[in-house]
Formats: sequence, C-alpha cells, structure tokens
Amino acid sequence: MAAAAGVSIATVSLVINGKAAGRVSPATQARVEKAIADLGYVVDSAARSLVTGRRQCVALVAPDVGNPFFSQVAAGVATALGTEYRLLLAVSGAEHDQPDLDQLVAFGVDGILLEFPGAEPPSGQIGCPVVLLDEPSGPPELSRVYFDTRAATREMVDQLVELGHRNIVYLDASREGKTFETRRRQVANRLRRTPGTALTRVRSDIKVDDASTLVAESLPDWRRAGVTAIISATDVLGYGALSALGAAGVSVPKQMSLVSFDDLPFSKLTSPALTTVRLSAYDLGYASARILREQLAEESPAPRQESLPAMLINRSSVGPARRLRARG
Amino acid sequence: MAAAAGVSIATVSLVINGKAAGRVSPATQARVEKAIADLGYVVDSAARSLVTGRRQCVALVAPDVGNPFFSQVAAGVATALGTEYRLLLAVSGAEHDQPDLDQLVAFGVDGILLEFPGAEPPSGQIGCPVVLLDEPSGPPELSRVYFDTRAATREMVDQLVELGHRNIVYLDASREGKTFETRRRQVANRLRRTPGTALTRVRSDIKVDDASTLVAESLPDWRRAGVTAIISATDVLGYGALSALGAAGVSVPKQMSLVSFDDLPFSKLTSPALTTVRLSAYDLGYASARILREQLAEESPAPRQESLPAMLINRSSVGPARRLRARG
Repeated sequence: MAAAAGVSIATVSLVINGKAAGRVSPATQARVEKAIADLGYVVDSAARSLVTGRRQCVALVAPDVGNPFFSQVAAGVATALGTEYRLLLAVSGAEHDQPDLDQLVAFGVDGILLEFPGAEPPSGQIGCPVVLLDEPSGPPELSRVYFDTRAATREMVDQLVELGHRNIVYLDASREGKTFETRRRQVANRLRRTPGTALTRVRSDIKVDDASTLVAESLPDWRRAGVTAIISATDVLGYGALSALGAAGVSVPKQMSLVSFDDLPFSKLTSPALTTVRLSAYDLGYASARILREQLAEESPAPRQESLPAMLINRSSVGPARRLRARG
Repeated sequence: MAAAAGVSIATVSLVINGKAAGRVSPATQARVEKAIADLGYVVDSAARSLVTGRRQCVALVAPDVGNPFFSQVAAGVATALGTEYRLLLAVSGAEHDQPDLDQLVAFGVDGILLEFPGAEPPSGQIGCPVVLLDEPSGPPELSRVYFDTRAATREMVDQLVELGHRNIVYLDASREGKTFETRRRQVANRLRRTPGTALTRVRSDIKVDDASTLVAESLPDWRRAGVTAIISATDVLGYGALSALGAAGVSVPKQMSLVSFDDLPFSKLTSPALTTVRLSAYDLGYASARILREQLAEESPAPRQESLPAMLINRSSVGPARRLRARG
C-alpha cells in the first residue's frame, strides 16, 4: 500500500492509526486514504496492535463474576470506559487463588483493574498500568481506590453497643483480603472500648447459600452463648444470615440484630430491609476506570490513591438486644 | 529465528503454535526450541493471533452488565469457558440500541455470545460463530439457547385466575425483544381463555428504581380500575414493584398479588418472598458457552438450537384476589 501511495510504511501507519495530523501533509494523507480505499484495505486490530502496541482493551480481574457487588463494579467500569476501550473480564475461578496477570499482559491489554481481595499486589514491572480496587493499603507505586470505612464502622458498632448488644458474631468472608481484614479490625477495635463485649468470628464463602448453611448450623451454639447481633462482612453474607434466621423462626431484629457492609440494590428489599454500611460498588468501578484512563493518557503516570466515602444506612434489621432463649 | 534454527518461518510458527506434532521432526522441533530459548523469544499473543487467527477470546455482548440476571449469565459462561478462553465483556450502554459485532470481529474474538434482547440477529457472514442467548426464535442458520416458558406461564396464569384475579397489570420491559414479547404473548393468550379478564401493559427500564417509580405513579389508577395482581416480566422489575407497594402501604399478597420471571438469587429473600418463573441465567450462560466451544472445535459446525426448562416457583407473593378500596 505504501508503494501504491508512493509513501513510506511509517506514513501509512500514521494515517491508519489516526496520527497523521501535523505529521503528514493533507495531500499525502489523501493519497494514502485513496490507496487504502483502492486496495480495499481493512484495519485489522491485531495487525494494528503490533503497530501501536494498543488493543484499546482493559482487563477487569475478579474472583467471582456472579457476585452482585462485582456486577455493580463492572457497570461502573463500563460507564467510565465508554466506547473508547473494550472491557476484558478476566475471571479467576474459585480454584485459582491468584490471578495470572502476566498472561493478560501477554494477551496485550492496555491496563488492568484488579478487583481481587487477597491477590498479591503485582510488581511495578508487569508492563501495563494497574489499578487495585477496594484495597485499603498497598505499595505506594501502585494506584488504588479504597473505601474509608472507619467513621461509618464506628457509628455502626456504637449503635449496637447503645442498644445493649455485648455478645456479637462477626460473619466474615473466608477469602483473605485487606478490605475484609480492615472491616473486621475496625469493628473489633471499636468494640474493645466497651468492657464486657465479645466478638466471635465465623467465616463463609461469599455465597448466599453457603452463609445460610453456616448460620443455620451455628445458631444453636449462638443461642446458648447469648449472641444478640450479627455483623456481616458483606451484604451477600448478610442475605444468607437473613434466610437462615427466617427459616429458623428467629425474628430480625426482635431476637437477632443484623448489620452488614455494601448496600447492594437488593438490601432495601430484604425482609426486614437491611441496615448496612454503603460501599458504592458502582462508584468504585467508575473511579478506578477513570484513574486507569488517566494513567493510560499520561506519558509517565504517577500512581494515584483515591478514597471513597462509606455511610451507615439505617433500615430495619437492627434493634435492642434481647437474648434468645436457649433451646435443647 | 528461522535463520538461527536453519528452518523455514512456517516451521517456526508450527512449533510456536504447538502444531509441530507429525509435521515437524522432533530433531527440527528441538532445534527451533533451542533457537527460541537462545534468542529469548517470547510468544506475543498479538503476533501469534496473526498466525493462528485465534485470540482464545470469546465476547459476551449485553446491554446492561449491572443487571443481576446478566451477572448470573456471565458466571455460567465463565465456568463453561474455563481457562481455555478469555471472556471479553462487550457492554453496550443504554444509549446503544444495537451492539457493534463487526467491531468485535475486527478485534479478533473467536466467537460471540449475544445476550441482547432486541438485537438484530447478525448475518451468518460476520466471520465467527455466534450463539444467541435467551432468543425464543431466530434464523435457522444461527445457534441459540432459549427458555421454554409455555407450560410454566400457563400454570402461573391459571393460578391467578383460580384465585379470582381478573384485572391484571403486566409490568413489561421497555426494551423490545423476542423473549419479553413471548412471555407477554403467552400470558395474554392464556388469560384470554377466561371471559371477563383484562391485562393492562405498562413498561419500564429493567432497573429497580425505575420500576418502583412507575408503579408508585400508576398505583392510584390501578386502585380505581380494581387491579388485583401484577405480572412482572423480570424479577428486577418485580423488586421495583415490591418496594413501591411496600412504600405505599399496599400489602403483598393480601391487597396485591405479584408474580414474576427469573428467580434471581434474591427473590427468596424479598419481603414477601417472590413467586416467580425460574429461568436459570447461570444455565443459560453455561449452555451457550458450551455450544460456542463445540462450534469453535468443529470444522464446519452446524447451528444448534437448545431449549432450557422453566419452572413456576411458588413462594409468598400470590394470594386470593381482593379489590383495593379506591382512595381519592
């Protein structure tokens, strides 16, 4: 085609890749475009990616695409990416403890959004910009977006204490991760300020049915121990607790209070409506993708750490402490 | 590298792409692999994709990634694809009426899963296998997976009629699409068998808040008209109806019955638990991705149409008809 247009290959690639402005004269550009038309040349993005090194493709890496928190993150990412970038969803099945980022880089993604509690933070040398999602701490050379949960968590714990709750279960995610570790630590630290309080940790996969089974099995022990409230690390775990308590005839909040983290779109619809600390998954996805786009636009991008607000949303699942009568 | 190994470029590409067996002698293969090692050659997937025409990447195209039905579909797709294929999530924002499949083909995806009610079925000539998801009808040359909703819909309508419901609202999706058209038609046809019944159609975007607003605004008219039941085209629309009815102090099912389609994981947790026709989104994603993989494995694949079962799940949102007292 360069021959047909009587120009250099470099010139052709400038035109093909829309970088001709100011570099190639309008006349030359017109000649190249005519040659392209004459030869019926179609820009193949694989071929182009060899020229530009860009796929206009961003990977969102997560352990569980079925998680509604994640689908809200993906919606925010998709909105922020618009039509300029494609979104590659790199799912790492439950069997994979760590995502394979090198494979994604080899695939040629322009950037990576890592929404993966417990993932090893990648080294700065992996070859494309990375933004960590929902990571309250990380190496300074990596960009990340996180929720500032401290104030809302204090408010949540203080409310339970004021309502007389002393013996509380913490329904945690079995997946390790700094975001879950932080929520748990902030709850425990705040509760420790009140003498005579106890926090018992149990763990479940972040699936409604898994959490429901765990709570159903644990309920007899909790009755005997005098547990009056459950703090759930995520709404999905909280949904499982709600269904198990409902099936066991335990009234929420009369006999058991329940409070959670996330405020998924369904938490205002549960029975009773869930009191929860709002962590906007959509905002998390949107802010992370915006930062990644900025990083892709800059020559030598500086890492960015951005915090998002958290807010306690009071609904109907928290009430005064009332010890369950032990059965059996 | 061909020079270093003293072989042809074709031979090198056979070895690089794991197609040497039976084509290249072990000795030659070893020589090429040594050259690869010596030259520190890394297989770049963009370069390789030019050789193989394969990205090991499948696109899932949908209008709204935030929809929990879609996230269940994506989970099923991810499971069926396993680690062999990457999943490209091609989101078409609300502003896009039609997905741009040619752009995806140009990007070099190996196949397309189209979960997009109302999308024009692509012509067979688009250059890669396509499977239509949740499409009850389509051109015979295209593979598709759909739900056989007829029997479950009849059961649902007959139950409402037996409970005395005559004046029913159909809360439909504003998005056009054969799957929504089919549900609506099957409901209307079955209801028509009973004299003195009326079905009023209203439409909303498939968002909890949009549906909630629409139902809240329509409720006064429905009271006056003596509506006693709502049939919702999707659970998300049903969630919106539930929250609007709850806010208006209308007891479900005492004063208004509600039945829906989907059975999302949250429908057993709503207040009251939602009676709904189960259309397994996970199974839909899994079956479609399995078919696409088979199509990718075959030399000249024949189109496949596969139906999935639907089942009425009776919970607590349907009861005997009781006309609301009109207010104002």
